[in-house]
Amino acid sequence: MKVTAVIMAGGRGERFWPKSRNDFPKQFLSLTSDGETMIQKTINRLAPLVATEDIFIVTNESYVPIIHQQLPDIPKENILAEPVAKNTAPCIALAAAVINKKYEDAVMMVLPSDHLIKYEEMYLDTMRHAIKVAKKDDNLVTIGITPTYPETGYGYINFFSNDDEMPGVYKVKKFVEKPCLETAKEYLNSGKYLWNSGMFVWKVSSIMKNFEMHLPAMYEGFLKMKESAGNADFTAVLEKCFNEFESVSIDFGIMEKAENIYTLSGSFGWDDVGSWLALERINKTDECGNYVTGDVITINTRNNVICGGKKLIAAVGLEDLIVVDTDDAILICSKDNTQDVKKVIENLRICNRREFV
Amino acid sequence: MKVTAVIMAGGRGERFWPKSRNDFPKQFLSLTSDGETMIQKTINRLAPLVATEDIFIVTNESYVPIIHQQLPDIPKENILAEPVAKNTAPCIALAAAVINKKYEDAVMMVLPSDHLIKYEEMYLDTMRHAIKVAKKDDNLVTIGITPTYPETGYGYINFFSNDDEMPGVYKVKKFVEKPCLETAKEYLNSGKYLWNSGMFVWKVSSIMKNFEMHLPAMYEGFLKMKESAGNADFTAVLEKCFNEFESVSIDFGIMEKAENIYTLSGSFGWDDVGSWLALERINKTDECGNYVTGDVITINTRNNVICGGKKLIAAVGLEDLIVVDTDDAILICSKDNTQDVKKVIENLRICNRREFV
Repeated sequence: MKVTAVIMAGGRGERFWPKSRNDFPKQFLSLTSDGETMIQKTINRLAPLVATEDIFIVTNESYVPIIHQQLPDIPKENILAEPVAKNTAPCIALAAAVINKKYEDAVMMVLPSDHLIKYEEMYLDTMRHAIKVAKKDDNLVTIGITPTYPETGYGYINFFSNDDEMPGVYKVKKFVEKPCLETAKEYLNSGKYLWNSGMFVWKVSSIMKNFEMHLPAMYEGFLKMKESAGNADFTAVLEKCFNEFESVSIDFGIMEKAENIYTLSGSFGWDDVGSWLALERINKTDECGNYVTGDVITINTRNNVICGGKKLIAAVGLEDLIVVDTDDAILICSKDNTQDVKKVIENLRICNRREFV
Repeated sequence: MKVTAVIMAGGRGERFWPKSRNDFPKQFLSLTSDGETMIQKTINRLAPLVATEDIFIVTNESYVPIIHQQLPDIPKENILAEPVAKNTAPCIALAAAVINKKYEDAVMMVLPSDHLIKYEEMYLDTMRHAIKVAKKDDNLVTIGITPTYPETGYGYINFFSNDDEMPGVYKVKKFVEKPCLETAKEYLNSGKYLWNSGMFVWKVSSIMKNFEMHLPAMYEGFLKMKESAGNADFTAVLEKCFNEFESVSIDFGIMEKAENIYTLSGSFGWDDVGSWLALERINKTDECGNYVTGDVITINTRNNVICGGKKLIAAVGLEDLIVVDTDDAILICSKDNTQDVKKVIENLRICNRREFV
């Protein structure tokens, strides 16, 4: 059975403003010193596992040219443009329809486009194991990440004890929302919760059975999209289906209701690179703890993230700041206030300064 | 007797880097919200006191075009270009030579080009009084500033008690160098010390008598420059004289040795605008204590100086920083470290990045 990958690349994240904009979100940025963009890394690490023609990218219409540019090897027909973003469930139904038309049944790895993985070999091992589990019966597999601290910004996966039938594979008891710090600590101490990384592996047939059961209207859309895939009316059918689809995540729409969900615990140096703060975690810092790119002079300056642009930046006596220079905007933000960057974006929206958003 | 003003505009200050550069120093910058440059302010406030044709500007050859541009009303022949900067004594000798040739004797007010004065009417009153004192005998007058705090960055003027002959005028006992904090506090508490503002008033004849006595070689130069002033060989004579002049300040070369020095205590809101920190002192700040110019969004940001350029600046969670954006460089500096900006400039010099210095 064919193994395919579906990369979800429609995200519009604001956390890397001013580098990320509505028309150039995080997945297309290079946030590591190797110069590769997040989506290029996502694709490249799959090379030993999936053929290029079996990688499908679901995205927004406006990002298609960027994807062609950054990933010239991906066949154009594998880049699937959603007419409108309706969260992850419709995105997965669309990819499933196209794959189902091409291969009848196949294994689908569903992967975010903007996460970082440090231990790629261990990642591949985990994915191979997940594929094996997904091929069996109608199993749905979700990749959990072994927590290293009580993070309150992620959802968690609560799993049952192993039944020895499949070593390293755990049946999922339930998905839980982002916890408060105290609850997160309990989860961590219990040894029964993993971070929900948003990576899934299943057969097209398995996930569609669950769509039929839990999101029947979307299942109807899936059938229509599959029917028209590759035909002249595909775009029109897509438009009609997406207009009718409810906006719902795969977690809420399917995973919280489905049976036969298994999780594998990934320990492959996963990082969701959730904000500018992540850059000092995922990159090498200088002897003063600064992560610096571009033309920057630092004097008596410690523990900052400084992303220079075309100008010289002189940083004097700074501590715990994020500095980002782009062609039209400069962000200077204390590390304790990164969540307030969205207030800047709100302000820009209110003032109708769309060129900055 | 004619009253003339000599504006010393050769300074190359680095304290307003990156806005001030070697080829565009502080006196040519606008640092207040009214848009006037420091030298324009200096000239404009003299209007009730001195005719435009009696204002002389001593500067560096390379600044002559900027002065023409910023002060189009000053006659070109009144802009005196020093072939090489040799501190204030040669600068004053040059101006005295030109004025002496034009008017035989005259009162000379010698004034820095880059200081700020808030109470201009009181300033004019003080200068009128100083002119009166300078006309009498061979008095040399220095304008002292009544200290408001124990500043360690200025020289001080120690004066004798008033002898009731000239009310508000004090004979100078001695000039003292920049003190340590403890000494500065003693000066302040004694009531016998004023800040040395670098503003002087005297007759050409009085100061030249002192040059003859204390800097005789420079006096010879003065005679030669006077002789050639207005003639074809003036530039050549200037070049020769300046090459031979020792580099010495008027304070050290004359004032510390001369007799008949009087000081008037100025209380006219003088500010030497010595660093970026001065901007929040001399300008109106917002309700959070920020002095902001340009396109800046502040969120949860207090007590900063933010001078925007052409880009949007988003300041999030900042406190006590200096931020300056120019076309090719950005400075971000904590208020406690403004003195380290010169390390940036040193670094740029060492790396031979002259375009930034």
